[in-house]
Amino acid sequence: MRQRYKPWADDFLEENSHLIIPDPSKHKNKWRRLFGNDNPIHIEVGTGKGQFLIGMAGQYPNVNFIGVEFVKSIIVTAAEKVILSEQKNILLLNEDAADLLEIFSENELTTIYLNFSDPWPKNRHEKRRLTYQSFLEKYQVILNPSGEVIFKTDNRGLFEYSLVSFSKYGMELNEINLDLHDHDDPTNVMTEYEEKFSAKGQPIYRCRARFLNKK
Amino acid sequence: MRQRYKPWADDFLEENSHLIIPDPSKHKNKWRRLFGNDNPIHIEVGTGKGQFLIGMAGQYPNVNFIGVEFVKSIIVTAAEKVILSEQKNILLLNEDAADLLEIFSENELTTIYLNFSDPWPKNRHEKRRLTYQSFLEKYQVILNPSGEVIFKTDNRGLFEYSLVSFSKYGMELNEINLDLHDHDDPTNVMTEYEEKFSAKGQPIYRCRARFLNKK
Ligand SMILES: C[S@@+](CC[C@H](N)C(=O)[O-])C[C@H]1O[C@@H](n2cnc3c(N)ncnc32)[C@H](O)[C@@H]1O
Ligand SMILES: C[S@@+](CC[C@H](N)C(=O)[O-])C[C@H]1O[C@@H](n2cnc3c(N)ncnc32)[C@H](O)[C@@H]1O
Repeated sequence: MRQRYKPWADDFLEENSHLIIPDPSKHKNKWRRLFGNDNPIHIEVGTGKGQFLIGMAGQYPNVNFIGVEFVKSIIVTAAEKVILSEQKNILLLNEDAADLLEIFSENELTTIYLNFSDPWPKNRHEKRRLTYQSFLEKYQVILNPSGEVIFKTDNRGLFEYSLVSFSKYGMELNEINLDLHDHDDPTNVMTEYEEKFSAKGQPIYRCRARFLNKK
Repeated sequence: MRQRYKPWADDFLEENSHLIIPDPSKHKNKWRRLFGNDNPIHIEVGTGKGQFLIGMAGQYPNVNFIGVEFVKSIIVTAAEKVILSEQKNILLLNEDAADLLEIFSENELTTIYLNFSDPWPKNRHEKRRLTYQSFLEKYQVILNPSGEVIFKTDNRGLFEYSLVSFSKYGMELNEINLDLHDHDDPTNVMTEYEEKFSAKGQPIYRCRARFLNKK
């Protein structure tokens, strides 16, 4: 994921503030207005270079997609690809998932995608995992009552942890797949990491979960 | 699992009624008395030939184990092995899991093991799976409030189904392992099926789950 330092990254961000939205808290509760339509909003947390977002945006033109990625050089790469794709239903945020409550209002989202999130395998780093309780608390607020968290990973430890974390938080598991690529699924949009790890023959895990008692 | 017809099976059952308990509903709420101690009771549903039960009974001498298996010829084989093992903390029941409520009273059990349960992969056979809702309803009654269902299988479809079934029923997942044999675990007692399938290199799945709102 690491890239060489891009001194022009800040300039790029400024020039492309229609795509990588600066100061996103200004748009809290008004994201639909920015997209110019009333379509449901799906976000991907830890978007990386944007391959998933662009594929999904093409497949679901009536959904608004927002990618959240806190590494500046990576979101610049994502933005370059979004521009090439000419997809209009994508916005990007150079933000930390920890700040989601400042960016989105209650019930504003329909789906949250977590794709190949950093595993943080050491116990003492549990709090950094995007499926740790403190993150679930935020997702619960900003997802609408029937909204879902959809999580894909190749990392067995993180997947095992996350299913237990979802369950202990009181989420309901709607679907589990322990080998997503076992059957061809033309609707599955691959992420960069998914392409890499499934090529190595590793099973890809996926689950869909929802909050039962919406706050 | 199939064996040649054993005409002497009924005789065997009669001669060994201290081990394969006839008319078990008579002992409902009194199983501890039959064991002659106050130790917790664990049952295995779909015991097969008894390898797991015998291994566990040796490892946990202060637990009472009961195996439930509805195929007569199979439970006879299990009984023969139990006799050879000389374990005193095992009883066997030639019964159908569907009748558990007639055999055990509320809160009488501490653990229910489901090992390599028949997968019944067709949707129209869902009701036969031992992790189907109608079975969970029974387990919920007979398990004590902190009791657990511990489920092992090599069958991916059944495992995916069961995690969702547990979750939708309102059970909490306490632990999930998606490759039990990845690390050596000397406390893990292998079942007949587990030995067979793990030798083929298939991952073995395990989960521990409990009921949140005990009836
Ligand atoms: C392993 S990469 C996966 C990228 C992409 N989703 C994929 O599947 O190919 C994880 C990404 O999440 C980003 N990330 C991790 N924690 C984050 C956080 N708290 N907020 C925003 N992005 C985060 C990382 O910078 C990295 O780009
Ligand atoms: C696939 S075998 C597994 C045996 C053993 N547990 C193992 O892991 O090696 C499943 C066993 O469950 C038994 N069984 C299936 N449904 C049952 C039910 N409703 N009540 C009692 N036994 C059942 C079958 O007869 C069979 O012996």
